[in-house]
Amino acid sequence: MSTVTDSPEAQALFDKVAGLDNDAGNPRIKQIVRRVVADACRIIEDLDITPSEFWTAMSYLTETGQKNEFGLLMPGIGVEHFIDLCIDAKERAAGLAGGTPRTIEGPLYVAGAPLSKGEARLDDDPEDGEVLIVEGQVTGTDGAPLAGAIVDVWHANTLGNYSVFDKSQSTWNLRRRIETDAEGRYRFRSILPKGYGCPPEGQTQKLLDQLGRHGQRPAHIHFFVSGAGHRQLTTQINLADDPYVYDDFAFGTRDGLVVDVVRVTDPAALAAAGLAEPFSTIRFDFALNPEAANAPDPVVVRPHAEAA
Amino acid sequence: MSTVTDSPEAQALFDKVAGLDNDAGNPRIKQIVRRVVADACRIIEDLDITPSEFWTAMSYLTETGQKNEFGLLMPGIGVEHFIDLCIDAKERAAGLAGGTPRTIEGPLYVAGAPLSKGEARLDDDPEDGEVLIVEGQVTGTDGAPLAGAIVDVWHANTLGNYSVFDKSQSTWNLRRRIETDAEGRYRFRSILPKGYGCPPEGQTQKLLDQLGRHGQRPAHIHFFVSGAGHRQLTTQINLADDPYVYDDFAFGTRDGLVVDVVRVTDPAALAAAGLAEPFSTIRFDFALNPEAANAPDPVVVRPHAEAA
Repeated sequence: MSTVTDSPEAQALFDKVAGLDNDAGNPRIKQIVRRVVADACRIIEDLDITPSEFWTAMSYLTETGQKNEFGLLMPGIGVEHFIDLCIDAKERAAGLAGGTPRTIEGPLYVAGAPLSKGEARLDDDPEDGEVLIVEGQVTGTDGAPLAGAIVDVWHANTLGNYSVFDKSQSTWNLRRRIETDAEGRYRFRSILPKGYGCPPEGQTQKLLDQLGRHGQRPAHIHFFVSGAGHRQLTTQINLADDPYVYDDFAFGTRDGLVVDVVRVTDPAALAAAGLAEPFSTIRFDFALNPEAANAPDPVVVRPHAEAA
Repeated sequence: MSTVTDSPEAQALFDKVAGLDNDAGNPRIKQIVRRVVADACRIIEDLDITPSEFWTAMSYLTETGQKNEFGLLMPGIGVEHFIDLCIDAKERAAGLAGGTPRTIEGPLYVAGAPLSKGEARLDDDPEDGEVLIVEGQVTGTDGAPLAGAIVDVWHANTLGNYSVFDKSQSTWNLRRRIETDAEGRYRFRSILPKGYGCPPEGQTQKLLDQLGRHGQRPAHIHFFVSGAGHRQLTTQINLADDPYVYDDFAFGTRDGLVVDVVRVTDPAALAAAGLAEPFSTIRFDFALNPEAANAPDPVVVRPHAEAA
């Protein structure tokens, strides 16, 4: 029992706030606002939040908006991962099982990367990074190869920066869409990404500092994978040899998504690959769940940065 | 029971998010973040918030920060008023009673208005508004007059705009501090303010539209009142003849704060006041609670706009 929150006066306030005394507006928004406001007020009362603490929080949210960091803060406080857990539960309830695990999208996708068939080279800009070859197959959870599936891939450069957001890179650097071949295979050449941290002066890091937490992500590669008759998959692979692979501040690492990086140094293998220096390879296959009318839409509508 | 939220996996996530597994950081922030994140996740699960709905909300918060509207949204969704209800309850528990009711500060205070003794004229700019005379006395709840108390007053012009925020007005237009005289009296001449609404293209109005609610405030005048040995009071008076006086979108109107506006039209009275046109008068007395070590600090630390 929270004395103020549960009082008739406060409950009437929450009803009025949510517009429950009128027939206009959007019933879904009213339902959500009624719950969010009442729960927020209960927290204020239960934790004895002072007005000064409250307005400090509002200043924090204001600056988070101004620095456009909600997309970084939400994974940082685990909410984006929690939403994945909820969708997992719904998929299990709908009888779906065995697909490649989903994980968080993060805030750095850009739609419309160049599309090619079977394979692509992602690195447009000269950079010091080691060559990385990634290849694998897209199948259904039944193991049947998915020809014509789209592997939409994006990752950071060796400084932890993404093209479009980082204007020093070419527009589509380290971003491509690859259509799988007749056997569902895809392959790309890129550079080995490095792990990176939150902007040190940003709002997310500011909160993490208060929580005694770091803001580091392990090296990873993002994917949207879609194929006809199948549920689109949002996921990432995380590089096993990164010190943060099991300590991702964004809670994006999941069992089944940690991949070994195999380094090729043998001169004969280098010669066969047409490369003079040692390079890295990753093998990763995607298994997509079939479409299911009783499972939630796997395509998330959210704003994305756009290529200039 | 919320299946995902109450799972060991999610509970461990919330602990980790809040940094409960480390000894660094700020214990108070950890406590708040643990509760806020877990409760937010429970809402997501219970209301079946879709990822697209979630990111729509994040876009809304982002734009609210960018338009600097959290200070308007919080009263609009009743949270600023709820905080007043909590402080009222704490004051009652501390044995305080009988003072002038507090109400919301709103986002438009500016510190440092010109200070004068006993009386002041607030309107610096030529305007069409009708002359308003406000006078009254500041006492303790014991009725004893408070000499040297400070009445810090601010209000909108007839267009509903505030100086400093509205650059077309002189810096301190309709903002003054008045020190009460030996009998605790204050008096000021100003212009009669009008009610006003949220910015029609703003974030607060956008949400209110979804809730089927208007964004109008009745005509009102803001005050901070402080006197030695007494608790600072944050309040407003609301003009009784405004159509929105009992339907304030910001929930700022309270019993004890609605004041009658008395219009003076008698030629002899006008002549006595040295005015050629009819004018309005308001009488309002403030009763301040004594300082109380067991009641929460009445002074709220929050960011304010500054005079250029």
